[in-house]
Amino acid sequence: MYEVELKLRADHDRVRERLEALAAERVQSLTQADTYYDAPHRDFAATDEAVRVREETRDGDRVTRITYKGPKIEAESKTREELETTVGDGETVRELFESLGFEPVATVRKDREYFTVSGLTVTLDTVEDVGEFVEVETDVETADGVEPAREAAVELLVDLGLDLDNQLRTSYLELLLADDTPEDTQE
Amino acid sequence: MYEVELKLRADHDRVRERLEALAAERVQSLTQADTYYDAPHRDFAATDEAVRVREETRDGDRVTRITYKGPKIEAESKTREELETTVGDGETVRELFESLGFEPVATVRKDREYFTVSGLTVTLDTVEDVGEFVEVETDVETADGVEPAREAAVELLVDLGLDLDNQLRTSYLELLLADDTPEDTQE
Repeated sequence: MYEVELKLRADHDRVRERLEALAAERVQSLTQADTYYDAPHRDFAATDEAVRVREETRDGDRVTRITYKGPKIEAESKTREELETTVGDGETVRELFESLGFEPVATVRKDREYFTVSGLTVTLDTVEDVGEFVEVETDVETADGVEPAREAAVELLVDLGLDLDNQLRTSYLELLLADDTPEDTQE
Repeated sequence: MYEVELKLRADHDRVRERLEALAAERVQSLTQADTYYDAPHRDFAATDEAVRVREETRDGDRVTRITYKGPKIEAESKTREELETTVGDGETVRELFESLGFEPVATVRKDREYFTVSGLTVTLDTVEDVGEFVEVETDVETADGVEPAREAAVELLVDLGLDLDNQLRTSYLELLLADDTPEDTQE
């Protein structure tokens, strides 16, 4: 399974108006707290991998998932392989990874609001301490499906009044960590 | 949580007779397929740790759990810290660990039959390609509880007609791997 995803920093009020005009369907909203880990034996920043424990709360129910993200395989979008499964207890799986020498780097907290339009998913993300973002996303089964899916995503971005040139390839984690720079080291 | 566990190789027919005489309660039976992993950054044989993915089938239902076992903290019994939680999909969590560089060492398959007697758990294990074993086991909350629990377990072993001198500290995994030695290297 490959995830095709385009992301931009964008004011939500304007995008909501365009979603309404396009008759987008509001699917659901939820909150996520994602803890990312450093590996003891690999530099994930260099290998472009990630290990994440995600606690997701929707309508009062909490589900925890563990995810491995492989290196990006397609330069234009953020396409990469993902392995994800639920776990029964988030605290135990965090302790398990820490016992193995994986260290928590940071926790990204966000509210997400999902819409469906033209067969694609549009997400309005409000990321704590980082800002407002829009994602256009779809999953495809094979590598061959990646390019057509990306073209459809770009077309929808234009329909939403957004500019592809503003595309952001930086993860929320990287944006949060950049924000965490102590003030006295910022020029 | 600490697990106090004594284990012996023993013929099940004789132990069943003693369990009946002691009015032990037969609790349940199940099968387990345990895949153990080597770490890419630590020699688990040297650090005395283990990572295991266990698929357990009981009355047709399958549950997968992931477990980290820390080094043994008490020499006489096999007491060690355990971190365990369920996972939604066993195949995904196996792929996740393999993507991180953890390598499967072997899979231990066994049928287990559980009894309760004198507040302790007695397990009759039939391990594929390895043989028949009896375990006496209990969990205690604190390190202080370990020694009294061990003494109670030894007393029950004697009542079952077993000899503590035959206690086995070798894991099923080690026994299986020893069995796997190619014949031409055995003297």
